[in-house]
Amino acid sequence: MRWVCGLGVGLGLAGSCLLGQSGPALPAKVFGFRDFGATEARWDKAFLAVPDPALAREHLKRLTAAPHWASSPEDYATALYVADRFKAAGLETTIVPYRVQLNRPVKILVEAFAADGARLMTGPQAEHVDGTDGGDPYQNDKRILPAFSGSSPSGDVTGTVVYANYGTLADFKRLQEMHVSVRDKIVLVRYGANFRGVKVYLAQQRGAKGVLIYSDPADDGFARGDAYPKGPFRPESGVQRGSVQFLPIFPGDPSTPGYASVPELPDAERVAVGKGQVTQPSIPVNPLSWKDAEPILEAMGGASAPANWQGGLPFNYHVGASGRKAVKVHMRLVQDIALRTIWDVIGKIPGVGGAEKDDLVVAGNHRDAWVFGAVDPSSGTAAMLEAVHGLGTLLQAGWRPKRTLVVASWDAEEEGLIGSVEWVEQHPELMKRTVAYLNTDVGVSGPSFSASAVPSLKEFVSDVTKEVESPAGGSVHEQWRLDQERAHPKEPVSEPKIDALGSGSDYTPFLQHAGVAATDIGSNGPYGVYHSAFDNFNWFVKNADPNFLYEQQQARVFGLEMLHMADADVLPMDYGAYGAEVVGYLSEVRAKAEEKGLKLDFTKTQQAAMRFEAAGVAARVRQDAGNVDAVRMNRALKETEVALLLPNGLPGRGWYKHSVYSPGEYTGYQAVVIPGVNEAVTLGDRARAQSQLQGLADALGRASAVLESVGR
Amino acid sequence: MRWVCGLGVGLGLAGSCLLGQSGPALPAKVFGFRDFGATEARWDKAFLAVPDPALAREHLKRLTAAPHWASSPEDYATALYVADRFKAAGLETTIVPYRVQLNRPVKILVEAFAADGARLMTGPQAEHVDGTDGGDPYQNDKRILPAFSGSSPSGDVTGTVVYANYGTLADFKRLQEMHVSVRDKIVLVRYGANFRGVKVYLAQQRGAKGVLIYSDPADDGFARGDAYPKGPFRPESGVQRGSVQFLPIFPGDPSTPGYASVPELPDAERVAVGKGQVTQPSIPVNPLSWKDAEPILEAMGGASAPANWQGGLPFNYHVGASGRKAVKVHMRLVQDIALRTIWDVIGKIPGVGGAEKDDLVVAGNHRDAWVFGAVDPSSGTAAMLEAVHGLGTLLQAGWRPKRTLVVASWDAEEEGLIGSVEWVEQHPELMKRTVAYLNTDVGVSGPSFSASAVPSLKEFVSDVTKEVESPAGGSVHEQWRLDQERAHPKEPVSEPKIDALGSGSDYTPFLQHAGVAATDIGSNGPYGVYHSAFDNFNWFVKNADPNFLYEQQQARVFGLEMLHMADADVLPMDYGAYGAEVVGYLSEVRAKAEEKGLKLDFTKTQQAAMRFEAAGVAARVRQDAGNVDAVRMNRALKETEVALLLPNGLPGRGWYKHSVYSPGEYTGYQAVVIPGVNEAVTLGDRARAQSQLQGLADALGRASAVLESVGR
Repeated sequence: MRWVCGLGVGLGLAGSCLLGQSGPALPAKVFGFRDFGATEARWDKAFLAVPDPALAREHLKRLTAAPHWASSPEDYATALYVADRFKAAGLETTIVPYRVQLNRPVKILVEAFAADGARLMTGPQAEHVDGTDGGDPYQNDKRILPAFSGSSPSGDVTGTVVYANYGTLADFKRLQEMHVSVRDKIVLVRYGANFRGVKVYLAQQRGAKGVLIYSDPADDGFARGDAYPKGPFRPESGVQRGSVQFLPIFPGDPSTPGYASVPELPDAERVAVGKGQVTQPSIPVNPLSWKDAEPILEAMGGASAPANWQGGLPFNYHVGASGRKAVKVHMRLVQDIALRTIWDVIGKIPGVGGAEKDDLVVAGNHRDAWVFGAVDPSSGTAAMLEAVHGLGTLLQAGWRPKRTLVVASWDAEEEGLIGSVEWVEQHPELMKRTVAYLNTDVGVSGPSFSASAVPSLKEFVSDVTKEVESPAGGSVHEQWRLDQERAHPKEPVSEPKIDALGSGSDYTPFLQHAGVAATDIGSNGPYGVYHSAFDNFNWFVKNADPNFLYEQQQARVFGLEMLHMADADVLPMDYGAYGAEVVGYLSEVRAKAEEKGLKLDFTKTQQAAMRFEAAGVAARVRQDAGNVDAVRMNRALKETEVALLLPNGLPGRGWYKHSVYSPGEYTGYQAVVIPGVNEAVTLGDRARAQSQLQGLADALGRASAVLESVGR
Repeated sequence: MRWVCGLGVGLGLAGSCLLGQSGPALPAKVFGFRDFGATEARWDKAFLAVPDPALAREHLKRLTAAPHWASSPEDYATALYVADRFKAAGLETTIVPYRVQLNRPVKILVEAFAADGARLMTGPQAEHVDGTDGGDPYQNDKRILPAFSGSSPSGDVTGTVVYANYGTLADFKRLQEMHVSVRDKIVLVRYGANFRGVKVYLAQQRGAKGVLIYSDPADDGFARGDAYPKGPFRPESGVQRGSVQFLPIFPGDPSTPGYASVPELPDAERVAVGKGQVTQPSIPVNPLSWKDAEPILEAMGGASAPANWQGGLPFNYHVGASGRKAVKVHMRLVQDIALRTIWDVIGKIPGVGGAEKDDLVVAGNHRDAWVFGAVDPSSGTAAMLEAVHGLGTLLQAGWRPKRTLVVASWDAEEEGLIGSVEWVEQHPELMKRTVAYLNTDVGVSGPSFSASAVPSLKEFVSDVTKEVESPAGGSVHEQWRLDQERAHPKEPVSEPKIDALGSGSDYTPFLQHAGVAATDIGSNGPYGVYHSAFDNFNWFVKNADPNFLYEQQQARVFGLEMLHMADADVLPMDYGAYGAEVVGYLSEVRAKAEEKGLKLDFTKTQQAAMRFEAAGVAARVRQDAGNVDAVRMNRALKETEVALLLPNGLPGRGWYKHSVYSPGEYTGYQAVVIPGVNEAVTLGDRARAQSQLQGLADALGRASAVLESVGR
């Protein structure tokens, strides 16, 4: 149903009609507001009218004009651009520098030789597509760095090459079953299935002397659809850059574990390179295009790779011969590893809500890119800037947020979430007052909306999407629902599924280190040029969002998230839903333990989870009642997430403190739920699992007590 | 456990020990024999000692010395060779000619042009591999016919090409949903998923003007493993020939539906070409290698093919552009369609079993090949000849079968089961006396034993495999069981699964037209050169069975099948097991009907199936009792299968008379069980389904009455 101007809910704000806003009717009731229709709705309506496709286009064009790798002059130029837009909207804006360790490639050489010594390839070759289908106007920019892996050390190694599929734990086990050792070998793996740093982590643990990671056309190339510039998928020369830091141990600057890399920090207070930097690989790593990997893979002998290891290149894949028949690879990487300055841009709109005015809502997106970063992350930044534009219009109209709203443009996310991690580590006192963190990263790569969130905020995200028009018709919520229904035609979807938060973007320090409830949103489509030079303005307008209507949509959704969270009477957090999910996670891990024959006592933890769910349901009833003490309730709702932190964090990776969500040690991106318990069960470690069950029970007990403290 | 000579069951036949036989201990009891250990076991033991790897090698070498397409002089030479071997073993041997319609390619041209008129390819190119990995010593034989489709008419057509994946019913529906018409187009499909004639059947029904069928490397080429001559899979130039007759309507000579193509049959009594030959396509059809198909597929525009239509070639697959952007294909096929003489070889060992001596056991394998046919079918013929060798040794030792044993070497199976169909159609009176038909086709392509059978004979097949040693250790039965367990590690296998009989080999006329219980056996492995010039002796010894030990195994299994079925006291047929399967098939089709909302009354048919199962179980109890009237029981067991025939056959394809098993109208190879009912339900045709349920109930009632007639 389309909302018709002058009809729908009467809001007494005809101005927004004059501004041309149309879209779904605004609801009369929204979770978190006592009388949404009479209060917040007018600001929503005024806000929704502002985000402008043409301005989003201009932001994207400016942000992607040059490669802007973190710490580069071009990166600083984008910080200035963002700061200017923040200031123009009326935000109190500062550019916050950190000095962090980054490697910059000086010389990257990968070459391969057949068993008879004949040269198979010399690379990496530069990314290049020919002139058909319009070619690519960005690829010859001299400022493009050679494709490299963030966090790779320098190195000069030569060795027999072994193909290890995606380099998952299961893949390395399979190699072992085939009696193929990776010790002192160079491991060639393809992107996909897990975080690239995990591939390196596993290979290094098994004694590999180097790792090459390539993009197989089966995964994001021609086998998925036409390659760029004809279509959106990865062309033969396209390379996925990316960090290979051991992110599941901790993210951020590897030289300052758990504390901030402020510019004035003395070097003596840092962990130096090679002196116990536990998140940095000790072996050289580099990415390759499939064009560069192809001659190596084709020449490799040894056993045929298992059936599901076969990729999309036109020959049978082998795991690699050893001895006299071995294919040899030589990697010579010269990295300039140094402390470099990066720049977060922080904009603030002070709150005016009495006792809660100094509580914080933080919304953010990173700004640094491996190359031009049109989709990742500039599409998110363009949407964020149009959301800020909308907030500026509201400020001019007299709106002030109840809570203080902070909008952040993080730097050096690509090297390991550095800009956000250092900021969170610098401001523990702010974290205590932060009620929620709202993230976006890849803002728009296509038309399919998606979201991740802590369970308490799923209804909040869903509510916001019902107010925003989709370029495809109806509301974002309706198109999102239909997308999920189309993906599984036999399962009717009434409420679209929202995923758990794993890692790979800037919500990680907020949620998993500081215990701040978080959400993450994006709008997705076929996107095969991730982290390559082809993720540029030309790709974006051909494939992702030619008319910037999804940019407009995302600006509206992101901005409404900020508005609602900053203005809510009672925070829109449903801990009944949170509790129900935790109860479900426990059932699953219990079944997994039973399947493995691991005898564990779940009694106390299950009781704690049920108490948590009951306390959440009771709180929700009071939240909806209207006569609640909002300040006290909001404090409890905020502190409930903090109470879920484990005092000592997860085993072996204490930086990750959340008892319910973390990136998996062996997955990286994907969330492992109730990770302490789940990973102990996976390892078959009964004692550890029982102790983790106790820690979880304690956390759930603390969280229940917080919720119960506001009365029954 | 290995059987040790001199130990195990004492048989008083030390000779077989001297002959070097070892292997699993022979069982004391075998289904069908009153006192197996004291009677038949000695013949089994003597038989098992005979089949000889070196002689099997010699047979294969001789049979595959030249391409021996049905009706060719070289085919006749193989008939003479087989007849000689039969005679040498003491079989009464005749060469039985038929005059049947076969097309022989005179000129085959396929060429393709891009939208701008540029030539994309001219073919088909000859099959050829280069000299690496030993090359191929057979590929340059001048007698190799150009790759062609059996049953294709001549034709000269030019049209826009459309890619239709495997050409299944679902694939053509998907094209329709994408608004892509195949009318007046040339349809390019890949091999796999269904019988190639069904692809043509569906394309022709939808108005296509020609069909090209190619072998995609994802299905039997490099994506599965190394290509020949390095490995066993299809090289780039390898072509799968094959018949595209509409086999699910009826098989055999298209000019003599339901009657025999005896040499003296006047032409006037035949259905002439173009005068209502319902099993012959009206549009030209030809196979292609992927090397020939690649430039066509790569140039095709239009929409991207659905994700699971993507094959193994290194570009994105498209369904084909229309109009000015269309890729055009020109096919000019000149076929010499003529009546040609083919030669079955029939060997006979008369029975001596009193009232049952004229009952027949028929065992067969075809002999014609598309080219050299090392695996298909000569590996089966070599095994059969060594089985016959064993029978000859028994004859010399004084053995005579109880029932008459017929061993058949069928011709022109490749063109549509012609040699066996015509023989069955010629001998309705023999069919009345035939208790079982034992088939082998692809005897050996690797080490994995497999079998199909009517349910009544599954125990019979299983029993035989327990007596034969596997080259991998233990019995064939044990390795077969382990193979199935390895394929699904989480499902323990106690008794290996035996498949239902669909079509694609010579059991079809026996079982599905004449109601003769049947089995089919083979030993399989990676085999990508099916129906190509590379299915030759060189491929075989490199990939399938270098030492001919699996040939020996298959000779032993096949020979024991013949021995046991010819000598059984009471026929080893379990109709309790048959009934249980029919009851299961009915439950499945009932669930399918309910899912489709098709209201059907299953009551009578379910009662009939349960009666059939009960009658089968009761008969089995009596069979095992030992005091049964064997002649009467055997007659009933034999007639039960006949009673399952439908008097009018299946709707629209009355040649197929069996109520429980037929090839699927839209699958071809794969069995559709209780096909009348299942296909009506698939079509959503309530009236037809109800009438078919009645027909099935009647058949089951007749079969039950036969079983019940021998007393309770």
